[in-house]
Amino acid sequence: MDIKRPVVTLITDFGTEDGYVGAMKGVLVSICPQVLPVDITHDIPRHDVYRAAFSLLNAAPLFPAGTTHLVVVDPGVGTMRRPLGVRAGGMTYVGPDNGVLSLVLRGQSAPKVVALEKEAYHQSPRWGAAASHTFHGRDIFAPAAAYLAAGVPLTELGPQLTDWTSLSLPTPSLRSPHELVGEVLYLDRFGNAVTNIRVLEWTGQDLRLTPAFSRSEDAPITLSGAAVVACREHLLPLHRTYGEVSPGAPLALVGSSGRLEIAVREDSAGVCLGLRPGDPVILTGRRRN
Amino acid sequence: MDIKRPVVTLITDFGTEDGYVGAMKGVLVSICPQVLPVDITHDIPRHDVYRAAFSLLNAAPLFPAGTTHLVVVDPGVGTMRRPLGVRAGGMTYVGPDNGVLSLVLRGQSAPKVVALEKEAYHQSPRWGAAASHTFHGRDIFAPAAAYLAAGVPLTELGPQLTDWTSLSLPTPSLRSPHELVGEVLYLDRFGNAVTNIRVLEWTGQDLRLTPAFSRSEDAPITLSGAAVVACREHLLPLHRTYGEVSPGAPLALVGSSGRLEIAVREDSAGVCLGLRPGDPVILTGRRRN
Amino acid sequence: MDIKRPVVTLITDFGTEDGYVGAMKGVLVSICPQVLPVDITHDIPRHDVYRAAFSLLNAAPLFPAGTTHLVVVDPGVGTMRRPLGVRAGGMTYVGPDNGVLSLVLRGQSAPKVVALEKEAYHQSPRWGAAASHTFHGRDIFAPAAAYLAAGVPLTELGPQLTDWTSLSLPTPSLRSPHELVGEVLYLDRFGNAVTNIRVLEWTGQDLRLTPAFSRSEDAPITLSGAAVVACREHLLPLHRTYGEVSPGAPLALVGSSGRLEIAVREDSAGVCLGLRPGDPVILTGRRRN
Repeated sequence: MDIKRPVVTLITDFGTEDGYVGAMKGVLVSICPQVLPVDITHDIPRHDVYRAAFSLLNAAPLFPAGTTHLVVVDPGVGTMRRPLGVRAGGMTYVGPDNGVLSLVLRGQSAPKVVALEKEAYHQSPRWGAAASHTFHGRDIFAPAAAYLAAGVPLTELGPQLTDWTSLSLPTPSLRSPHELVGEVLYLDRFGNAVTNIRVLEWTGQDLRLTPAFSRSEDAPITLSGAAVVACREHLLPLHRTYGEVSPGAPLALVGSSGRLEIAVREDSAGVCLGLRPGDPVILTGRRRN
Repeated sequence: MDIKRPVVTLITDFGTEDGYVGAMKGVLVSICPQVLPVDITHDIPRHDVYRAAFSLLNAAPLFPAGTTHLVVVDPGVGTMRRPLGVRAGGMTYVGPDNGVLSLVLRGQSAPKVVALEKEAYHQSPRWGAAASHTFHGRDIFAPAAAYLAAGVPLTELGPQLTDWTSLSLPTPSLRSPHELVGEVLYLDRFGNAVTNIRVLEWTGQDLRLTPAFSRSEDAPITLSGAAVVACREHLLPLHRTYGEVSPGAPLALVGSSGRLEIAVREDSAGVCLGLRPGDPVILTGRRRN
Repeated sequence: MDIKRPVVTLITDFGTEDGYVGAMKGVLVSICPQVLPVDITHDIPRHDVYRAAFSLLNAAPLFPAGTTHLVVVDPGVGTMRRPLGVRAGGMTYVGPDNGVLSLVLRGQSAPKVVALEKEAYHQSPRWGAAASHTFHGRDIFAPAAAYLAAGVPLTELGPQLTDWTSLSLPTPSLRSPHELVGEVLYLDRFGNAVTNIRVLEWTGQDLRLTPAFSRSEDAPITLSGAAVVACREHLLPLHRTYGEVSPGAPLALVGSSGRLEIAVREDSAGVCLGLRPGDPVILTGRRRN
């Protein structure tokens, strides 16, 4: 970690036009003057904790060790849900205890988690004694991220916790030795349908995958030969990339996050194939192990 | 102020897709190589000077002294409206003289204001002698912000002014000793209706507030007991936070900027209650002083 | 170039909500820890290579020498289109060979171009051996930009090329000595119609312009007197700025990028005049040379 120039990433559902994200950045820069704030997104659909969790999962692992990831998608602001600070895998995470941090924490060994309760590390708004109960992003989460980025030890900010909220994710299942049944998790902005089927390796012939979402559980299985994917009434060929089919044609491929995706070249699989989150996706091939 | 790493925040209504904001950032980095540009928003509705003024008001006070705030929402570009540079309360502000800076300057003692007229601190576009009359953001405002952030004295950039455009804001009024009448200023992205009633303190029992928008004018009044808020046909309970009512239920609360807000938990007060800017909001309680 | 704090700008059509841009920023910061990532835009309409090329053209020239511009609008990801790294005019550019870099390279003398083929400068995703074929932004382009920003010589990243894809742009033509026929290139976010007629200088009387898009080709011509612009059924006066006509009135003017633009004051020329890309625009004046 470069202590001189700590990086804090931001994910919120605030949009930017009201200045709320700006306020959070002001807090970051005020408390930790050398910080580099890096926007991941402020366009998470309102209160969509799952989408924010996936956005974090897609982006966070690419940052260097020592980065602090600040996530404020917080439908429960002002309720008893706890504000969390986490250290795991060399990264720091700050966000509400509603599961938004849970996907990126899966499979991480021994995360250290605290409840951000110590008021000395909270911040009061400047317009009088009436502290806000509606904007913990500015008053609790951003200060915590800034203090942690500045080097304050995690356990200074509150008591350690041993449990926290996890998002439940559907797990793919084997319907037969040759058939793995998963489902669509979400549609990305391009209309690609990202599924819960994780691929460990694809040689173009053999597809090595684990039936569980987490990469550490269970033994991987290998499907071989002309693997095909059934999705609604469509039988889709498995390709390496969009360019292997004609524009407008549907395909399955291993997406950029290592999951099986359903796509339509230069178009939206969501629109063209009528896909929605929860739709089943069946992967079939010759079982090798 | 960390002179080695000055912060310049940006608020515009340009969107980002045309590269106009990118051009402004290029100017900032060219003139002041150590600058940290910080986006507040580029999604202000086109020409909405009020919305930009509130966005600035929500964000700017959270930044450290020495920050430069660059605001370009400028329906009058190319007319006689003056370009302003301002120093007040330890901050620097740059923007057109259309009121967009005026809300954040209220109650600031002795702001120093100049017209950014000195052409030596303007910039010509590089594609020929024809200087632009349509993009002062790039050619006048961004250069001024960069020079000021780099340490050029404000009065170097133009003659000092003693008057500038102020936005008029509706002032709440006492209809009876127990009734304060305000109105909705704007709806934020979540559909929360932000009013012109400023709260200095709320203990959960006593609500101390000032009938004027500015925090320095008039004596504060205190309402006590079960304060209720009437808004259209609704009588709304006053709560500390969203979580104290059920999802879908309306409430009034003291918002994150210290103003009375009308909200619907996990939904939009604008949509659910049909609120619009200008709608009256009546706050009633037992008068204590 | 400030080797201690290199600037990398970003233009994509990814939006931000999926975390894909965040992943690219993570790569930048990981490989080049002192980098300042600067967003130009992530709101390019999907696969709109022209729009991205204009966005780059509007923004890039304002950045200081030494800046790296990273553009990922890449409908052909995974096909044989080559990934490019370019040094020209003191700047570095990284993006796919689909023309997206070609507008900013016009008229640049002797750009040095390489194909980013050297796998040592690619990056594999971390979730297993299956490298992505769908996200070269993260795995090829962002690493290249980061290594170049960090000082790796361009020719280290792949073999040099002598040809690359150029976008074809309509060239204005002289219909008579007094009439220049151009066309609308695109509508910006404000609904201003930007044309392919470049203006070298406008004194308010004389309009010096070149019939070719590139500023270096052909001899400039000069039109004088009351130049008027015909666009659909409209005869539009040529003004210096919006403020010279009433709100709602149409006008022609020299836009911020030095091109003739059709605008409607405080409204959209696209909507009010029904303009679309490709619509002819005829500029008429008294020929002086």
